Amino acid sequence: MYEIIVKKRDGYQLSTREIQYFIDGYVSGEIPDYQAAALLMAIYLRGLNQREMADLTRIMMHSGDLISLEGISGKKIDKHSTGGVGDKISFILSPLVAACGVKVPMLSGRSLGHTGGTLDKLESIPGMNVSLSPDMFKQVLNDVGMVICGQTENTVPADRKLYALRDSTATISSIPLITASIMSKKLAVGTDGIVLDIKTGSGAFMTQLENSIELCRTMVAVGEKANRTTIGLVTNMDQPLGNAVGNSLEIIESIEALKGRGPDDVMEVTFGLSAGMLVAAGVEKDYQKARIKLQKALESGQPLEIFKKFIAAQHGQSKVCDDYSLLPRGKHQEPFLAEKNGYISKINAYEVGMAVVDIGGGRKKKEDVIDHSAGFMFHKKVGDQITRGEAILTIYGSDSKSIADAKKRLKKAIAIDKEKVSIPPLILHLIDKKGIHPSPFEN
Amino acid sequence: MYEIIVKKRDGYQLSTREIQYFIDGYVSGEIPDYQAAALLMAIYLRGLNQREMADLTRIMMHSGDLISLEGISGKKIDKHSTGGVGDKISFILSPLVAACGVKVPMLSGRSLGHTGGTLDKLESIPGMNVSLSPDMFKQVLNDVGMVICGQTENTVPADRKLYALRDSTATISSIPLITASIMSKKLAVGTDGIVLDIKTGSGAFMTQLENSIELCRTMVAVGEKANRTTIGLVTNMDQPLGNAVGNSLEIIESIEALKGRGPDDVMEVTFGLSAGMLVAAGVEKDYQKARIKLQKALESGQPLEIFKKFIAAQHGQSKVCDDYSLLPRGKHQEPFLAEKNGYISKINAYEVGMAVVDIGGGRKKKEDVIDHSAGFMFHKKVGDQITRGEAILTIYGSDSKSIADAKKRLKKAIAIDKEKVSIPPLILHLIDKKGIHPSPFEN
Repeated sequence: MYEIIVKKRDGYQLSTREIQYFIDGYVSGEIPDYQAAALLMAIYLRGLNQREMADLTRIMMHSGDLISLEGISGKKIDKHSTGGVGDKISFILSPLVAACGVKVPMLSGRSLGHTGGTLDKLESIPGMNVSLSPDMFKQVLNDVGMVICGQTENTVPADRKLYALRDSTATISSIPLITASIMSKKLAVGTDGIVLDIKTGSGAFMTQLENSIELCRTMVAVGEKANRTTIGLVTNMDQPLGNAVGNSLEIIESIEALKGRGPDDVMEVTFGLSAGMLVAAGVEKDYQKARIKLQKALESGQPLEIFKKFIAAQHGQSKVCDDYSLLPRGKHQEPFLAEKNGYISKINAYEVGMAVVDIGGGRKKKEDVIDHSAGFMFHKKVGDQITRGEAILTIYGSDSKSIADAKKRLKKAIAIDKEKVSIPPLILHLIDKKGIHPSPFEN
Repeated sequence: MYEIIVKKRDGYQLSTREIQYFIDGYVSGEIPDYQAAALLMAIYLRGLNQREMADLTRIMMHSGDLISLEGISGKKIDKHSTGGVGDKISFILSPLVAACGVKVPMLSGRSLGHTGGTLDKLESIPGMNVSLSPDMFKQVLNDVGMVICGQTENTVPADRKLYALRDSTATISSIPLITASIMSKKLAVGTDGIVLDIKTGSGAFMTQLENSIELCRTMVAVGEKANRTTIGLVTNMDQPLGNAVGNSLEIIESIEALKGRGPDDVMEVTFGLSAGMLVAAGVEKDYQKARIKLQKALESGQPLEIFKKFIAAQHGQSKVCDDYSLLPRGKHQEPFLAEKNGYISKINAYEVGMAVVDIGGGRKKKEDVIDHSAGFMFHKKVGDQITRGEAILTIYGSDSKSIADAKKRLKKAIAIDKEKVSIPPLILHLIDKKGIHPSPFEN
């Protein structure tokens, strides 16, 4: 291990065998945390080339059980987002794509810090079970066409151990390490392809566009090297996506979207990623045509039926789709008012995400318990005109003290200008094995 | 701690408070090894500026007890070498400088890997005690004018803990970390000045001249910042220093030197460093004049008397100076023969040091027990003419198997050429607070 640290410290490539030795030894406990920490920092500062990254991803993936999807008919395409604020795309995209005949198996995560978690949002639905056995996972996928649940204990144990160490040694934000972490988990499920939503901007993990593009290229390359069709979209996460931020509020917004009443920004990203999935599955070759197909599918009402079936299959109350009062809602509802006339020029997504944590809708630490009812409902977004005293959003919470904290943070997060600002496009780039392209959709 | 790692990872300076927080937390055990390891690797790759290094050194120094030399009359000057092969300078220099009225308090180390250890060499002398209490340390210094012993348990505990971590995380060879490690221990003793012997070449810790110069400059700057007159010599360590390599053999060579029969190379480095000590003490201003004074002192025989007094004060048998048979000597004595005619063109000091380890005269691991009798006596050095079948050196050892291993290594280490090679100068540079200078001595 010492020699491996020396090599990477001095900027040399690690061989496949050396990467294998590191992962095996670290998972088994033979290599101590402090040696792994030194190597992680050396990787952070020296980088990994594409061969090393592909090796690391594959070796991490093989550190635990693989989930085979053999025997399930049709193409299976997964979608992964690097995480944002108000990102409820999975709930709309999965039934929509399933309605077009492509199966969507998703292993998702929980909220931490400013980003929301798909599993937490689902758990606002009474009875919903997000801890499925591999057999149940396959059965729901086969019966419904989509499934969303958490990782099993033994999927990629190497990532679980390494991630905890990276989290305490400031080695999270490394493109090679992020790539290996995400892709090892994605590749552990036997899909035909993966569509990536790489967020960029204030609410994203990567705030700089160049870094987001680099991460996207890298992940596409690693996915393709593992023989999975991999398509990435780089999308804007400067302001929250949609109007709802917070667990149960986002579920309501998703159901509304499935009823054809989704906010424009949510629908644009949903259609974009869904079209990528149809292309990755080989169902369509042209992104615009795929998008038209998806719009028709949505109008048919079938995706909402699939979503209800999915809820029921995972033991949730599918009646929530027709009766939102079955979902938890914050006791207090307080408007957050504009202090001057003008146009909203900024809604900092990171600060909004942290304000949700303030009112109990997210986690500061892994152990924190989430209040599914807490969140914000925006009435105005960037570019909208506003009058002094008008509500920019409504706060749903249970504790007046924490609502006051959230208000302070929202004050910092939201800016009002005299001039109307232009809104940047949501889908910035599309990256596939051929390279980087502009958005294939008309904005 | 997380924020501190982030700052250094991203190439920013750490504040004095942040360095204090790290050292305090690491020594107390609140900061875990893995976070310290990540920071050490970030420091290794990002560096520390002079202010950070001076802070780290001072804060590490204050992590344990300081040894005050108040009440001891005269100037007190320490000498430190970065370690080499056949380096027995301390035993000759200390009594020589003491004979010129400057007191020499030395805290030394043990052998590890290819480098010999001053304390191990001293322990070849029957009865010699190198574990002195601070009171005894001061008493010997006061009575004899010199003292050499090991660090006490509580001198710079931060360095002990950090060094062990660096040793297993490949973060030893970092100039800022070496500087803080050495200088924190040197500054913990209340001397007036420090003379540094920074080795360069195959047997040195830093094999590249530029790195050795950089280390020397850095250490001089940190010493001067702590208000100690600090002078460094960069000296060649390409071949072993002197003819003797191995513990008891080096003691004999040192006593011979004190009797006026030292090898030229040993005497040149001894006089150079000793002159630096007289200049640092303010006893002489001119290096050449200091050297002449030292030569006269040696001829007076007083240094040998001081060395005997020093041995007796630390409970050793001072009779060894008159009867070398009281020192351990290897049971087997085997010549190592030249395989062809020509001139010795290379004696790789690193390999010679490791060959001493092979025959038991050094340590691979800290726990290894040393055979003080084992070593080599060179009859020929680089530049000397040799005939096939003639002995280049004599091996002193106790085990035939390990002697065979050593021979294999020596074969690799020693080269014979047809042409006579020129020998590079021993003292390459002198560095003081004014900057870098050529050697002040005539070669």
